[in-house]
Amino acid sequence: MSAYESLLERLSELGHLGHAAALLGWDQQCYMPAGGALARANAMGAMGKLLHERFTDEATGSLLAQAEAEGAEEGSDRALTLRAVRRDYDKSVKLPTALVASLARETALGHEVWVKARQDNDFAHFSPTLEKLLDLSRQVADHLGHGGCRYDALLDQYEPGATTEQVATVFAEVRDGLLPLMEIIREGEQVDNSCLKRGFDEANQLAFTEYVAKKLGFDFNHGRQDKAVHPFCQGLHRTDVRITTRVETNWLPCALMGTIHEAGHGMYEQGFDPKDDDTPLSGAASLAFHESQSRLWENVIGRSRTFWNVFYPGLQRYFPGVLSDIDIHQFYRAINHVEPSLVRVEADEVTYCLHIFLRFELEQELVAGTLAVKDLPDAWNAKMQSYLGITPPSDSLGCLQDVHWSGGMFGYFPTYALGTMLSAQLFEKALTSQPGLEGALTRGDYAPLLEWLRENVHRPGRRYLPGELTERICGEPLSAKPFIRYLHNKYREIYFAERRQRKRIL
Amino acid sequence: MSAYESLLERLSELGHLGHAAALLGWDQQCYMPAGGALARANAMGAMGKLLHERFTDEATGSLLAQAEAEGAEEGSDRALTLRAVRRDYDKSVKLPTALVASLARETALGHEVWVKARQDNDFAHFSPTLEKLLDLSRQVADHLGHGGCRYDALLDQYEPGATTEQVATVFAEVRDGLLPLMEIIREGEQVDNSCLKRGFDEANQLAFTEYVAKKLGFDFNHGRQDKAVHPFCQGLHRTDVRITTRVETNWLPCALMGTIHEAGHGMYEQGFDPKDDDTPLSGAASLAFHESQSRLWENVIGRSRTFWNVFYPGLQRYFPGVLSDIDIHQFYRAINHVEPSLVRVEADEVTYCLHIFLRFELEQELVAGTLAVKDLPDAWNAKMQSYLGITPPSDSLGCLQDVHWSGGMFGYFPTYALGTMLSAQLFEKALTSQPGLEGALTRGDYAPLLEWLRENVHRPGRRYLPGELTERICGEPLSAKPFIRYLHNKYREIYFAERRQRKRIL
Repeated sequence: MSAYESLLERLSELGHLGHAAALLGWDQQCYMPAGGALARANAMGAMGKLLHERFTDEATGSLLAQAEAEGAEEGSDRALTLRAVRRDYDKSVKLPTALVASLARETALGHEVWVKARQDNDFAHFSPTLEKLLDLSRQVADHLGHGGCRYDALLDQYEPGATTEQVATVFAEVRDGLLPLMEIIREGEQVDNSCLKRGFDEANQLAFTEYVAKKLGFDFNHGRQDKAVHPFCQGLHRTDVRITTRVETNWLPCALMGTIHEAGHGMYEQGFDPKDDDTPLSGAASLAFHESQSRLWENVIGRSRTFWNVFYPGLQRYFPGVLSDIDIHQFYRAINHVEPSLVRVEADEVTYCLHIFLRFELEQELVAGTLAVKDLPDAWNAKMQSYLGITPPSDSLGCLQDVHWSGGMFGYFPTYALGTMLSAQLFEKALTSQPGLEGALTRGDYAPLLEWLRENVHRPGRRYLPGELTERICGEPLSAKPFIRYLHNKYREIYFAERRQRKRIL
Repeated sequence: MSAYESLLERLSELGHLGHAAALLGWDQQCYMPAGGALARANAMGAMGKLLHERFTDEATGSLLAQAEAEGAEEGSDRALTLRAVRRDYDKSVKLPTALVASLARETALGHEVWVKARQDNDFAHFSPTLEKLLDLSRQVADHLGHGGCRYDALLDQYEPGATTEQVATVFAEVRDGLLPLMEIIREGEQVDNSCLKRGFDEANQLAFTEYVAKKLGFDFNHGRQDKAVHPFCQGLHRTDVRITTRVETNWLPCALMGTIHEAGHGMYEQGFDPKDDDTPLSGAASLAFHESQSRLWENVIGRSRTFWNVFYPGLQRYFPGVLSDIDIHQFYRAINHVEPSLVRVEADEVTYCLHIFLRFELEQELVAGTLAVKDLPDAWNAKMQSYLGITPPSDSLGCLQDVHWSGGMFGYFPTYALGTMLSAQLFEKALTSQPGLEGALTRGDYAPLLEWLRENVHRPGRRYLPGELTERICGEPLSAKPFIRYLHNKYREIYFAERRQRKRIL
């Protein structure tokens, strides 16, 4: 057996153990009884420690060096595999196992603390946890190394190659494109979305979301959907991908758009190349790429006119009588209603990124220590006022709303906006390179789009860095322009077509 | 830190990893999508291998030897801990890691094969798996060592200290007590249990089973109930115990008695001493002890007249109108209906053990190789005819009915009958040593019984070998007599009180 083969075998074994670790996380959020939290934290800590120890073991390093010495043809899967492992290994060995184990355990405990704090609107209950996790994250950043900006090191964990400065630049470009659009929308004919707040039976919502996810291409033989307080997608393996959703009987988009979003993540995980199973190439290129998939299906597809032409009759069938007075035009406008709101995951496509910019700025200050944890609620509220013109009535709807910080995930949020931009860029490319795509979508045939994504995004897996992959697919780096173009085209039509129509009626 | 403390720390870490491994098994049977089976088998194999490797590592052996050298006061927890670890360690090091990993992986795969074979009534589909698992089990027996009878070694894995010969002797005693009772029952007034086959709404069944489990003392803050094709109990930790049930809308006892049975297992797991958490003393004394708890709650309590005096009004409330023409006397007789039947888990208290005797005999022959796998269906059917006077119409209702052999668990079945005997012996002891117990049960107060079990069975955990523990609690070894006495008293009353009553009416 060559060193390369031995290395792959070792990493495949680690992948199997990672499957067990991932299941602990899924179960924690879906089914674990409350009283099991401490034991679960211990189990997650032990698995995190084990995986880190085994991966950073001298045996891995030595096999890797030998495999590199065996050589590999440039651009071959072998070369790309070795490059990916080298990158992961060099990064991982910088982190002491004790720190990794602490993080795994403290975040498992932190989750419960945050759940309670959010439930009770009690930021003070969460702040010691946040202090501790920030401290651990700063240690992580220092171990990983950086040129003076710790946030760079944290960001790089989720989006390899991205820097704080680059992200700030592209975010500024998005903001500059959004502000005039928001002005236009404010002047346009307002949208009535009250039909989404009618009573939608929970069981029917779950059935309809599964029906939609299946139609789009999520494979329920290799995945499932459960309910969770905070929707997420957890791939245990390409062949076992778990998505979750949250149902509100008086707010249809919560479960429906949530499921489409998570199904987008799930189809990415199910779409890795089967021949890469249990190898280092099986996985997402980056979190921005992951989010590009969820946002593409949720928004670019799931809030499109062609999508609702296909699904609206089904929606009406699943909820007999509830929407019988609403025509598809009204429904399409309702599902695309734009309004500054408090909660990121419920935000519309236009204002969504503003929620990210706010977090991006606050995270930098928290990590740098220029913002004290105790001052976070005020800082949050001030930024909400300045970006969105509203102030949260409670911290639960403010700085406690998201799960990420309780998981020690600082530097993660920017990938949501980067992925959102990327979703528009990828879709624009798909349309120009696949002439029949638009017709297929009109017919409700999602297979050609999914296959294009499979070929260009999913099957390449971890072969390329996100920047490289964007260049390979789109022939240019990540850009804010397609996203801004997409929003302007779509929302000018929605808000001004209506005004024209109204004028005609008058 | 003393070697003893280091040893405990090492084993506690292993316990945390075991939690992750256990969750893989629970999820496999409750929620895993079918297409995830192979990846799951790999994950279970990797975890099984890891746990065995770490436990049998020279580092464990050396710490154990040092800890033993440090000494411990006889009978102290420290001494009992060292004894338990020494026993586990000496047994585990005999098994090569490759064999343990093979078993973990093959049984995970075997589960899916068996599910399909049973579903399709296709024994031939399952027989290669059975061959392979028998072969691996024979290897296990040979590595563990035995005095010529491999089955002894397998049995000892589940019931430390038990031998094939002892088990055969005590089983003969039970059989000799059962046969005259069955004769009596055949002559008695027959019982009509058709009321249990009426339509019972699934959601209400689940709600009622949870209500009963809670009343008996199963703690839903530290556990939960889910549906599974084959009901089981899986403790991930004392604070996170999972039970499962199966619902048939036209057969009330399936879910109800199944839940009470699994809740009995679950209360044992929840009842280990909190101060033993994450130590080698936290665990069941043996599988017979485990089964004594499930059978005690399911049968001795759950099929008793006092139990139904308490719960029958609630049952009628949960299923409005369904049982309004059935009085409690009729219901009590129905739930205690005795009749030879095909499926072990559905068998009544009187004929149950016959199902075990049959498996005990067939397993010995399969392991010894005197019965070929291909001849198993015929051998099974012949024994069913001889023990119970009926012949299965299909292998699905015959030799494919149980999950155990697909899990490589040869030597496990006898513990069901041993536990059943023990349940009667323990209950007899509880009644004589707790004068107020009978009154409490009459009032529907299960706390005193649970507390007696906690003190005598649960909290001792793995301190004593099953034989020692039986002696400590009952002042005598395991005996068939209390079980035979219990059955004779109960069923003579049921079958002859009715005859007397009938005569009076005539």
